[in-house]
Amino acid sequence: MRREHVLTTKELSRSDIEAVLDRAVDIARDPPDRSQYEDTILALLFFEPSTRTKMSFDTAMKRLGGTTVDLGPVGSSSVTKGESLADTVRVIEGYADGIVLRHPSEGAAKMASEFVDVPLINAGDGAGHHPTQTLLDLYTIRENVGFDDLSIGIMGDLKYGRTVHSLSHALTKLDARQHFISPESLRLPRSVRYDLHEAGANVREHTEIEDVLSSLDVLYVTRIQRERFHDENEYRKVAGQYHITPDLLEGADDDLIVMHPLPRVDEIAPDVDETAHAKYFQQAHNGVPVRMALLDLLLGGANK
Amino acid sequence: MRREHVLTTKELSRSDIEAVLDRAVDIARDPPDRSQYEDTILALLFFEPSTRTKMSFDTAMKRLGGTTVDLGPVGSSSVTKGESLADTVRVIEGYADGIVLRHPSEGAAKMASEFVDVPLINAGDGAGHHPTQTLLDLYTIRENVGFDDLSIGIMGDLKYGRTVHSLSHALTKLDARQHFISPESLRLPRSVRYDLHEAGANVREHTEIEDVLSSLDVLYVTRIQRERFHDENEYRKVAGQYHITPDLLEGADDDLIVMHPLPRVDEIAPDVDETAHAKYFQQAHNGVPVRMALLDLLLGGANK
Amino acid sequence: MRREHVLTTKELSRSDIEAVLDRAVDIARDPPDRSQYEDTILALLFFEPSTRTKMSFDTAMKRLGGTTVDLGPVGSSSVTKGESLADTVRVIEGYADGIVLRHPSEGAAKMASEFVDVPLINAGDGAGHHPTQTLLDLYTIRENVGFDDLSIGIMGDLKYGRTVHSLSHALTKLDARQHFISPESLRLPRSVRYDLHEAGANVREHTEIEDVLSSLDVLYVTRIQRERFHDENEYRKVAGQYHITPDLLEGADDDLIVMHPLPRVDEIAPDVDETAHAKYFQQAHNGVPVRMALLDLLLGGANK
Repeated sequence: MRREHVLTTKELSRSDIEAVLDRAVDIARDPPDRSQYEDTILALLFFEPSTRTKMSFDTAMKRLGGTTVDLGPVGSSSVTKGESLADTVRVIEGYADGIVLRHPSEGAAKMASEFVDVPLINAGDGAGHHPTQTLLDLYTIRENVGFDDLSIGIMGDLKYGRTVHSLSHALTKLDARQHFISPESLRLPRSVRYDLHEAGANVREHTEIEDVLSSLDVLYVTRIQRERFHDENEYRKVAGQYHITPDLLEGADDDLIVMHPLPRVDEIAPDVDETAHAKYFQQAHNGVPVRMALLDLLLGGANK
Repeated sequence: MRREHVLTTKELSRSDIEAVLDRAVDIARDPPDRSQYEDTILALLFFEPSTRTKMSFDTAMKRLGGTTVDLGPVGSSSVTKGESLADTVRVIEGYADGIVLRHPSEGAAKMASEFVDVPLINAGDGAGHHPTQTLLDLYTIRENVGFDDLSIGIMGDLKYGRTVHSLSHALTKLDARQHFISPESLRLPRSVRYDLHEAGANVREHTEIEDVLSSLDVLYVTRIQRERFHDENEYRKVAGQYHITPDLLEGADDDLIVMHPLPRVDEIAPDVDETAHAKYFQQAHNGVPVRMALLDLLLGGANK
Repeated sequence: MRREHVLTTKELSRSDIEAVLDRAVDIARDPPDRSQYEDTILALLFFEPSTRTKMSFDTAMKRLGGTTVDLGPVGSSSVTKGESLADTVRVIEGYADGIVLRHPSEGAAKMASEFVDVPLINAGDGAGHHPTQTLLDLYTIRENVGFDDLSIGIMGDLKYGRTVHSLSHALTKLDARQHFISPESLRLPRSVRYDLHEAGANVREHTEIEDVLSSLDVLYVTRIQRERFHDENEYRKVAGQYHITPDLLEGADDDLIVMHPLPRVDEIAPDVDETAHAKYFQQAHNGVPVRMALLDLLLGGANK
């Protein structure tokens, strides 16, 4: 994987994925020698708000022994002067050994990657992809329930969520049974369904979590965004229906894990946090070893 | 003090305070080996504007040999997506070895500390507390005039200032004579006066600085915020009355030191800066060794 | 150059300039030992948006082995509480070994420098100066075409551009022939023309690029800012006229280099990027070795 860009999960094979996860396991146990990274700089370009993704890339680079430079909030950069993304990344590749890019436009990362020679990692491009989120999701799944004969429910806003789209492409390569649970208005987009179908995915769609809960190894919950609804009543109805509580989880397997890419608002009741099902904070923390592994695979050779 | 949170000055004993100040003196003279901190990351979570506190924590961690990760301005983080503070800190404790938190709500630091296992330092919670400001204030007082038989005047906005409240609790433990000087409308809140009374504080209140100036070892000036006044004329009257000039200081002891937590606006005339009384810049600079000492006491064991 | 401020190009002699450029060449080839800078902190104070200048100073300090502390966007600092710039820099000199300052007011860097003992570098003060931009511009010119018998065209907004003013003062010391090309409304200000005249500069003014293009070694293009024009039609007319294309460059010497301080908007057509003339990205990248050299000259002695 040296000196390549990481843009979508579509282009990652099962063995690419396993290589990153295996490296993450190794790194969590035995981090590489810091001196290898003392002159490594990672540029963080976030054109949209982010806490987890940005801070965990920042942490990952620093835990390896390198450092970061940050474009800062868009309002405080020259992007406000009308500069193109292509120009911005071409300048910044002269500063850094790698670039992490979040951008509101789908396809932005792919376009930007064509202008730079340093590795560029897509940290979310509009409704497009978010491959490193998927890698940490898979790490969490593998360490808790494994990949064999996996049955996963993915619930909430399946229409707009790049996290869901990235995850689903990867799960297809793992031959997982994927149950999509959402209100009709937030179904997986036709284009994603088509792609998954073409890739031979094992997919079913549901509108009721109860129909499928007992058969799941993993329940992956996503945020239903209020701003997607024109009608506040409609939002409340949907939000109330897709709300995970300890009571609801009585109907699940004891070993079911509940995941969420965070931030959550009301999708998971706080008293679920105390149950053994709750893995969403562990999931967030896994962003560090997984991103350390990815950076190590992409940048490690730079100083060798 | 290992692995503990630092939330208020109320819970710090005189010997806790002296331990931090002694460590700060040592560190300023002979900093610990940097390699001890090479893998230490401090998270900076500032939900309110800050220059001095944030930059001096950042500096302190880096002078020790560690590094920081920064949540950034609130508008550029997922907090804008409605995430609770409890969730935010639970995620971030997976990235960092310690957390520094400033938040506009009184009690936020205490609440947040109940959700995390890494040390959390309160860097200001609304009108509540600001214990590290107090520690650097005390360091400045001790190095200039000592703690014995201390007489201190605290002037300005005593109603809203968390700096004043934190300092006053600590001064009580040092048996200092505390003179509070403010207009009637900005008196120390009843609840703070009650607490101080219960703790056996030696406290007097004044409305005129001239009544007490000559008896002071320390004059601690705070900013009177224009936005607290509905009436601009009323503000001007008060601001004019609580304005320190070289002329006024003619009436003070030669060894009186003038302190201010900064930023100042009009409370202290610029030509006071040239007098030997002025210690407010030294005070700000003392934030670095004092915060290095605190971080060393809280985090130093982590890598030992 | 130890322990001095860098405020304008006016006060840099030709040998000062050559010393920085020579050091940059050395550093690019053989960077100094990182351990020398492990306890060096550079403060970044940007009171105006910046990408290139800020990120390349940040990168330069980190490539040397040091680190930075950042004031952050102005809205998130205590500057919003009304603090004076003099107070801000006096506080921050207690944290850092050097200060980089960008400020919207002309003269701000000079004023601020009078209050601090650590080296202060002007990274742009309103319509005033931007000396480090000039140093990287000169580095790019020297490595591509050399300084002997230099003929340079400077085109676009010559009225407001501090980059142009700083560059022009330095070019005068190199005895370059300077051709200024702009619409009448964006001519070099009278005060700058007067200064250049007094310094014995070899200067001509033009309104048409075609009049002078074939005689140039360097074409330095600057951004024409839409907001300077009251009339949109007037803007379009001017912008269309001062627009560099491969066709236009057919009329230039094969060895002509095209430079731009970036960000560009429409001044240079994207297909110029593919020609051998285009040096603006290389120019931006040169910010790192040049700023490393400057920091090394200013701060290197601090830890020796």
